[in-house]
Amino acid sequence: MNERRGRRGGGRAARQAARRDAPVSTSPYLVRTLPPVEMLDEEGMVQIEENAETILSEIGIAFQDTPEALELWKEAGADVDGELVRFPRGMCRAIISESAPAIYTQHARNPERSVVIGGNNTVFVPNYGSPFVTDLDQGRRYATLEDFQNVVKLTYSLPHLHHSGGTVCEPVDVPVNKRHLDMVYAHIRYSDKPFMGSVTASDRAADSVELARIAFGGDLEDRTVISSLINASSPLRWDATMLGAATVYARANQACVISPFILAGAMSPVTVAGLAAQVLAEALSGMAYCQLVRPGAPVIFGTFASSMSMATGAPTFGTPEAGQAIYVMAALARRVGVPFRSGGQFTASKAPDAQAAYESAHTLVPTMLAGVNFVLHAAGWLEGGLSLSYEKLIMDADQLGAMEVYARGIDMSENGQAMDAFRTNEHGQHFLGTAHTLANFESAFWRSDIADNNSFEQWDEEGGLTAAQRANATWKQMLNDYEPPPLDDAIDAELEDYIGRRKAEMPDALF
Amino acid sequence: MNERRGRRGGGRAARQAARRDAPVSTSPYLVRTLPPVEMLDEEGMVQIEENAETILSEIGIAFQDTPEALELWKEAGADVDGELVRFPRGMCRAIISESAPAIYTQHARNPERSVVIGGNNTVFVPNYGSPFVTDLDQGRRYATLEDFQNVVKLTYSLPHLHHSGGTVCEPVDVPVNKRHLDMVYAHIRYSDKPFMGSVTASDRAADSVELARIAFGGDLEDRTVISSLINASSPLRWDATMLGAATVYARANQACVISPFILAGAMSPVTVAGLAAQVLAEALSGMAYCQLVRPGAPVIFGTFASSMSMATGAPTFGTPEAGQAIYVMAALARRVGVPFRSGGQFTASKAPDAQAAYESAHTLVPTMLAGVNFVLHAAGWLEGGLSLSYEKLIMDADQLGAMEVYARGIDMSENGQAMDAFRTNEHGQHFLGTAHTLANFESAFWRSDIADNNSFEQWDEEGGLTAAQRANATWKQMLNDYEPPPLDDAIDAELEDYIGRRKAEMPDALF
Repeated sequence: MNERRGRRGGGRAARQAARRDAPVSTSPYLVRTLPPVEMLDEEGMVQIEENAETILSEIGIAFQDTPEALELWKEAGADVDGELVRFPRGMCRAIISESAPAIYTQHARNPERSVVIGGNNTVFVPNYGSPFVTDLDQGRRYATLEDFQNVVKLTYSLPHLHHSGGTVCEPVDVPVNKRHLDMVYAHIRYSDKPFMGSVTASDRAADSVELARIAFGGDLEDRTVISSLINASSPLRWDATMLGAATVYARANQACVISPFILAGAMSPVTVAGLAAQVLAEALSGMAYCQLVRPGAPVIFGTFASSMSMATGAPTFGTPEAGQAIYVMAALARRVGVPFRSGGQFTASKAPDAQAAYESAHTLVPTMLAGVNFVLHAAGWLEGGLSLSYEKLIMDADQLGAMEVYARGIDMSENGQAMDAFRTNEHGQHFLGTAHTLANFESAFWRSDIADNNSFEQWDEEGGLTAAQRANATWKQMLNDYEPPPLDDAIDAELEDYIGRRKAEMPDALF
Repeated sequence: MNERRGRRGGGRAARQAARRDAPVSTSPYLVRTLPPVEMLDEEGMVQIEENAETILSEIGIAFQDTPEALELWKEAGADVDGELVRFPRGMCRAIISESAPAIYTQHARNPERSVVIGGNNTVFVPNYGSPFVTDLDQGRRYATLEDFQNVVKLTYSLPHLHHSGGTVCEPVDVPVNKRHLDMVYAHIRYSDKPFMGSVTASDRAADSVELARIAFGGDLEDRTVISSLINASSPLRWDATMLGAATVYARANQACVISPFILAGAMSPVTVAGLAAQVLAEALSGMAYCQLVRPGAPVIFGTFASSMSMATGAPTFGTPEAGQAIYVMAALARRVGVPFRSGGQFTASKAPDAQAAYESAHTLVPTMLAGVNFVLHAAGWLEGGLSLSYEKLIMDADQLGAMEVYARGIDMSENGQAMDAFRTNEHGQHFLGTAHTLANFESAFWRSDIADNNSFEQWDEEGGLTAAQRANATWKQMLNDYEPPPLDDAIDAELEDYIGRRKAEMPDALF
């Protein structure tokens, strides 16, 4: 964490001020005042729920290579036929209603950054899972641990990202079976926002829990401090790896984001209503499984759903069908009574260009209006998720700030109504000097840190930069100004000791 | 209209096919199935309506240099004090309710392209009013008549633009007092979509009506074939130029888009609720005026409202406050019972970059969800409206296509539910080969014509182009492939004769 000290500029006082100011201005999460937008009526909702129950009861869900899970389902009264589980109508929903929390707190190392997940709250979480990173200087290349640490540092510094995320990019320079240790450590060491644990193997999930236990100074039984991304192996199948990780986290009372991962057309039918029934069935079975493992363990109903080019098979993003899916799935999750994960700022573009921004915005707005609680991939995603873009991370995070205004709603106070301004202003004269404007101008409008609103002439004189070029300067400055949050030396030593021991126990592995 | 023939490629048959196919695939306008999204509750709506009536009755609206208008208001029972008109509470609203149509048809030269304005319909109209154009080859320069004609031709060729617009850019190479003739002629000659008339002087409005009368072959008393953009001189003021044009159009039974033009902070208070009360008051007074001129003349409740940088005074676009204003004003217009104009795809960016796209999308989505009927500036706007961008025209128009999917809503038919697909598909196996997918793949997902969804490697091999660079190739190809719609030779001759006579009658003027 000291490797950048030598090249920092700006003076210690300025850096301390930056550290004090920037992160403290973070709202820990958004609280929405706007009722969620519904795209389907009651009749449509009921029909999709019926279809999901038909899938669960007649077609069933495969639980692959997981005898323990099959045993739990048998005990619970499901019909287990080989690896295929068929659930009496309503069974999964009843299990979830019985014990899954509608809302819960994921504690952060810094209590001021703890997030409450569910209800009217929205938590923005960065990009997840990209093997590549890209920036305007170096272009696209495999991500390294340094990139991973950079993204954690930038996310820590970006006020509208509420959560440090998980595999913000894949540090491919670290052996596969050890990188989870470095990733979890980076989240703890370089940030004090809440974070996610490893899901690529049960023992890596266990390591994640153990590191969190050290970081949080003791038992976690009554505290959820990790979220984990548990993807279905769609269609209608859970695999042993993901279920294994889910089992570890659920047992430890840590949160599982149960996420069918769907490119419609490939992993589901091509229609939104078909996709919705399938995702509901898969999510219900996964969340109910977690409740069998440990009643009351936090679960999030997750959905990752996008469309594809039927001409080439390539995934497509920011499409209206994917937006419709977010609205419908959010409404279905509310009816289950659990928090919901979906959306983000997706794009298939390879550059942080207009395509990237159109597609991202056309994902972010449904995300916000549908009332998503946990927004993975809220910033940085490029190239269908294959790359994290440093510039897009900055641009997307800037856009998240605008969502705070929607969350707040319209001010109908006396000051908001501004009738005094009309009484004191001449017809046809501007309001810039009125008392009302002067009293409100500082908080009046959301201000983008990336947009250029200057005249053409001024913009041209300043180099005629695109938004991505301005964001390039921003992330470099931000890394330069970065100061880590405090971490107790004894805890840090214990974390390093644990990681050292675990790494020494295992030969490097490729998967 | 023949100047491009020599450089066309592709063969006559191909061009004829393109002419037949591309324009015919245009939906004449969108019909929304989704109920409009509301951002304020009944109490908030009533409060803003009360505030608007307070403005109308106590503070009043100035009607500048328009003795005729003041006379009409006196006769109608308003309190006229110099140029200031105060309206008894409810008076303007009652006048509008009495006679303004809730919905009406704007006829196009090609009846298949006539648009129905109001209700659940949405009509997309291109950029308006830019003195500059810009493209990636030539950069930014003053617009010319050739640019104007190009934009009309491109708009004609773009299936998701339903309307040819008005001053799509300012042909500054034509004298100010004559350019309206060339503009209206271009809309008639190079397109058969509906169009807008001139508003910069009463006699130019009269010329626009006269040209339309020739083009439509006779009397227009029972046919609305022109829309006109009537901006208020906000705050709380109408000027003689705009009112003069409105008077000409209303008398001829042509449509007036009565639009307060607001940069909040300058032309209105900085708060959304304050802005809303003012816009409602201004629009009510303007629409009621048109009804006094001719009861039953079509009017559209217009709103152009954006925010500004309180640091520099520069207009800002795509901000959440501007989005909130669209939702609120659309709801207020519905309560008045008239069609509503707002939104578009706005940006302050000087380049067709990520800023341009984020800001445009964050305007377009509220436009669509709020239920706007007449969407001026739906494509091409750049640099706060100072420039029309050829590339952004193409990219924006592409995005409009996605809105059709939202308008259609979610398919809950048996085919949409896709339950048969689940019954025939193996767990964990893809759906690409199922009968349901094969039966639906062609219409399955919206396809962008601009987005690149290929792999990084393929994209890189093909030059690593940005969306704007791809759009650059598209508009050139589109102009190359353009074929004008048919126009009766006798009508064309009559139009040219009228224009020639009018031009000869006037010396060139600079304003």
